[in-house]
Amino acid sequence: MNFKTLNERILSKNRTKKIISVAGAENDHIIEACFKAYNEKIADFILIGDKQKIISTLKNLNYSPDTFEIINCTDEKQKAAMACKLFSEKKADLVMKGSVSTGTLLKEVLNDSYGLKGNGFLSHMACIEFEDRLLGITDGGLNISPTLEEKVKIVQNSIDFYIKLGVDKPKVALTCALEVPNPKMPATIDAAIIAKMADRQDIKGGVVDGPFAFDNAVSKEAARIKKIDSPVAGSADIIVAPDIEAANISAKAIIYTSHPKNGGVIIGSTSPVILLSRADDSETKFNSIVLALNVLD
Amino acid sequence: MNFKTLNERILSKNRTKKIISVAGAENDHIIEACFKAYNEKIADFILIGDKQKIISTLKNLNYSPDTFEIINCTDEKQKAAMACKLFSEKKADLVMKGSVSTGTLLKEVLNDSYGLKGNGFLSHMACIEFEDRLLGITDGGLNISPTLEEKVKIVQNSIDFYIKLGVDKPKVALTCALEVPNPKMPATIDAAIIAKMADRQDIKGGVVDGPFAFDNAVSKEAARIKKIDSPVAGSADIIVAPDIEAANISAKAIIYTSHPKNGGVIIGSTSPVILLSRADDSETKFNSIVLALNVLD
Repeated sequence: MNFKTLNERILSKNRTKKIISVAGAENDHIIEACFKAYNEKIADFILIGDKQKIISTLKNLNYSPDTFEIINCTDEKQKAAMACKLFSEKKADLVMKGSVSTGTLLKEVLNDSYGLKGNGFLSHMACIEFEDRLLGITDGGLNISPTLEEKVKIVQNSIDFYIKLGVDKPKVALTCALEVPNPKMPATIDAAIIAKMADRQDIKGGVVDGPFAFDNAVSKEAARIKKIDSPVAGSADIIVAPDIEAANISAKAIIYTSHPKNGGVIIGSTSPVILLSRADDSETKFNSIVLALNVLD
Repeated sequence: MNFKTLNERILSKNRTKKIISVAGAENDHIIEACFKAYNEKIADFILIGDKQKIISTLKNLNYSPDTFEIINCTDEKQKAAMACKLFSEKKADLVMKGSVSTGTLLKEVLNDSYGLKGNGFLSHMACIEFEDRLLGITDGGLNISPTLEEKVKIVQNSIDFYIKLGVDKPKVALTCALEVPNPKMPATIDAAIIAKMADRQDIKGGVVDGPFAFDNAVSKEAARIKKIDSPVAGSADIIVAPDIEAANISAKAIIYTSHPKNGGVIIGSTSPVILLSRADDSETKFNSIVLALNVLD
């Protein structure tokens, strides 16, 4: 599984083209990503924002200003609310963050009246092309210092998302600084507890184990040397890090040193929210759209 | 600066060959790394451990059993103590972890009677070849959840080490999940405080700034997009992570996805302690020896 196969899968489904509402579209890179998805015939867009600015951005990029529906809106909160309202009215299938802040958008996503909230617990998932799979890293974008209960929800969200992406029983590695439970290191203790909760079916649909270090989570050779006997060892689909710093720094460490294809979305909501970083290139923004489209029915 | 240039620098110094005492040498990979360093004429070794086992390991690898001095010792604690005692008696210039556990060795390193303790605060430094430099990541090996005061010591240790490696004013990025101080994220607050402490000369010899996300610490383009004006932005020599999980997972994430040359040592002691992981390949073990030899006078 990689972004190319995910992109092809969307087209092969031969369904009605999905519509994405963009909260704040007055930005070159965002409009470029929208156009790429539009040209590849995988999605259509409703652009929300300052109509004059959006039209001039489109013209500057030599795109036709009447390709997309544009909804004029200059207030930050209103842009976010409108994007979610289009979802609730079934005029859009997905919501995408444009120039509005993450906080402003998520507040609307969590507003009960739009039906986007889902199970009520959102988490961030970064997906990185690695060997023959999309390695997931979570949660480097939303939950700062998750409790044990919140980590369990992060794990369940990640499994549900990967099953929708097409992975039958996703392998989840609860990753720490080392692979043995150590009472001095709370992250290893949480990992051991969560692994046992998964054994007892408190977490469903995946194969969950930990603690692992990153090396023995993804490298069979490292797992062999450390003598770790686990179906997850050396072949994890998803890395669950103990907190936002470990997940965020390690995902960016991979992205900025080996430059793999990658994308990211907010999961746990009824449909994923496409959450782009200002520093993402347009390909990464496009990949995030591909990820989200793939998990729609 | 890379491992090749560091290796050449050792030879160009044309000094007496340094001697390394190995705590527990009954292991194929360790002996291979020692032999590589011996053959490249950068170091000599005193092997401490079960003499019969060491000799049979040497013979199995087709090495002459009388190349190195071997000190017979079968007790774990005694192996570690002997390695440090050789340092205190000036019979060895460096101590290297062999098969003994990290905890056992560090207990002896911290024993006042051997003079290895240095300023008394030890930290771990991983160095990874990245672009035209050795990117340092600390502390993923020793200090689990450092306090603000301990983070300051980790930063100072890292600067002192990089200056000895030959970097004039090392650039240190205090790295978090994002680049703005956020009261909800203690790591960003610590980073802001430490950056200001460095401005006030509580930390000396380097250029220290933060908070950074990993992307804007190492990528000038990401720093430009995020509008970060700092001499460290986009060109950090050293990544200081907020805790052991963030440092350990991110260093291994780089190593196990892009496979750069790398090595690691314990710093803050009078001379660095060469600390090898069982999962390290023999090249990584050799690079760790090169790192340590480079900072000796």
